[in-house]
Amino acid sequence: MAKKQVKTLLNEGLSSVEGYLESLVTSDVKTLYDASHHILTGGGKRVRPQVVILAYLAAGGQEVEEVIPLATAVETLHTATLVHDDINDHSDMRRGKVSVPSRWGRTFALLTGDYLFAKVYELMAPYGSPYNEIMSNTSVRLVEGETLQALAAKSGEMDRETYKKIISRKTASLFEASAHMGAKLAGATEAQVEALADYGYNLGLTFQIVDDILDIVGDPDKLGKPTGLDMLQNRGVMMVQNGGAVLAEMSNAATLTMPAVLEDDPMQRMMDDLRESGAVEVARTQAREMANRARAALDQLPDSEARELLYDLVDQVMERDK
Amino acid sequence: MAKKQVKTLLNEGLSSVEGYLESLVTSDVKTLYDASHHILTGGGKRVRPQVVILAYLAAGGQEVEEVIPLATAVETLHTATLVHDDINDHSDMRRGKVSVPSRWGRTFALLTGDYLFAKVYELMAPYGSPYNEIMSNTSVRLVEGETLQALAAKSGEMDRETYKKIISRKTASLFEASAHMGAKLAGATEAQVEALADYGYNLGLTFQIVDDILDIVGDPDKLGKPTGLDMLQNRGVMMVQNGGAVLAEMSNAATLTMPAVLEDDPMQRMMDDLRESGAVEVARTQAREMANRARAALDQLPDSEARELLYDLVDQVMERDK
Repeated sequence: MAKKQVKTLLNEGLSSVEGYLESLVTSDVKTLYDASHHILTGGGKRVRPQVVILAYLAAGGQEVEEVIPLATAVETLHTATLVHDDINDHSDMRRGKVSVPSRWGRTFALLTGDYLFAKVYELMAPYGSPYNEIMSNTSVRLVEGETLQALAAKSGEMDRETYKKIISRKTASLFEASAHMGAKLAGATEAQVEALADYGYNLGLTFQIVDDILDIVGDPDKLGKPTGLDMLQNRGVMMVQNGGAVLAEMSNAATLTMPAVLEDDPMQRMMDDLRESGAVEVARTQAREMANRARAALDQLPDSEARELLYDLVDQVMERDK
Repeated sequence: MAKKQVKTLLNEGLSSVEGYLESLVTSDVKTLYDASHHILTGGGKRVRPQVVILAYLAAGGQEVEEVIPLATAVETLHTATLVHDDINDHSDMRRGKVSVPSRWGRTFALLTGDYLFAKVYELMAPYGSPYNEIMSNTSVRLVEGETLQALAAKSGEMDRETYKKIISRKTASLFEASAHMGAKLAGATEAQVEALADYGYNLGLTFQIVDDILDIVGDPDKLGKPTGLDMLQNRGVMMVQNGGAVLAEMSNAATLTMPAVLEDDPMQRMMDDLRESGAVEVARTQAREMANRARAALDQLPDSEARELLYDLVDQVMERDK
């Protein structure tokens, strides 16, 4: 298949996923319908569905339609966690729109997230046991990652090991599962499935580190959500409280002390400090290393146009500004 | 099989479920482990697991071990919804212990509920597509029921039709699924599976009406949770606000007006009014009718000791005081 053909297949697949997401919500309960529809449609980068579809194609899959409900389930699971995160983080904006808790309140946001979790398994049911096992194990990982993050925010303690554990579980696990399941559905060899899962895992780590960098230096308009929010409420506070722990620790940069937070416009000051500490550049180096590991995993696969697009996806994740 | 033998099988099965619930939580994230363990163990009537096991046996199943993970999944799903309900209802007590949000806070309670939802599908994965379809459809129903209840609480509007819809989805659906899946696993005929599902559905309606009655007239010590709470925060407030809507409406009893709520000790007054209105007696009549429907469904099954125990379960649900 020529690269252009594969790209067409990918785009058609992503359109089908959009269609599935549009029609996924069928509830006669208007609030669930409205809130789910609001957050599922018209936003989101759909990176995980891309990973599912491209892993499937790179592993030799021929019938893209076969993975569409799976790709939709992966995106729906991700979306469900966003809705619950927005409750816990008190976030007002998401995907360029008002967040579900902000518009419908915390009670209905909680229920909307639960509804989306249930829809994930409706989509997954036809795939049978091995896929449902992967998906449910991954769901456990996502929740563990979010919990570790909330615990770190509460205790004010965060080190590099904890940071790695958090982003492995809350983000990389679902990227890994996306590639794993896509490859498995294509009937790839065990070695190929493993290589693609490894790709997904490292792409996910890359994605999250870049996400955390964008939270510090990104443009809120492009991101569709305010920057510095994660920092203020979660990881970032720990970074700063612990002398710029995670990112800055990696850089051995100047210590960022807590008093800065107490001065005028503490958020601006905190972010300026982090930018100036060199922590962001260190994090970029980390992201590049993870990106290289993702590429190395792809090297184990036979040459194909779909594989080329998976390489391209690494570049896009590295270079994204939203 | 003699009735005593079947009773022994049931009790052994329920012990296995307890063991599964004890060992279900394996997370290295201490808060998730502690909170999940707290709510999963040492409490709960385990009515739904009983329905799974007895439906399996009444449908001719021979290997109880086969349904234990399924019965555990059903109880875990129920428990997950309790944890999220306790967030939305601000409940401090559950199953005779402090509630998860009260002890660990709302953020970790939300994540604990999510964790338990994920564990449900880990338990379900080995059962394959048809069972995962039933379970996920049921999860959707549960969330819809809870949402309808929260919407009714917010709008202050509740009529008999809405009440029926709410309890059908938030309670009866999982009882129905319990009996349905238990019978299906036993390899029963389509007609038997349907009869047992019908039994489960009507037992669930009975259970919820009795639960709502106990919320008005029950003993908080026996229930392990305060009474009047559902009333104050959800259904009950609507009942009273709308002239004693639901229950009182059924009885055509004297109108209970809102001002009562504004007087001294409004909760006590509200509950006294409801008790005196005759609404409770009307609700008991409703529960008896649903119980009769559950029994009628059983009449369609071949005579067996397991079927006898399913009849007994209807009596227990009707007569329970906790």
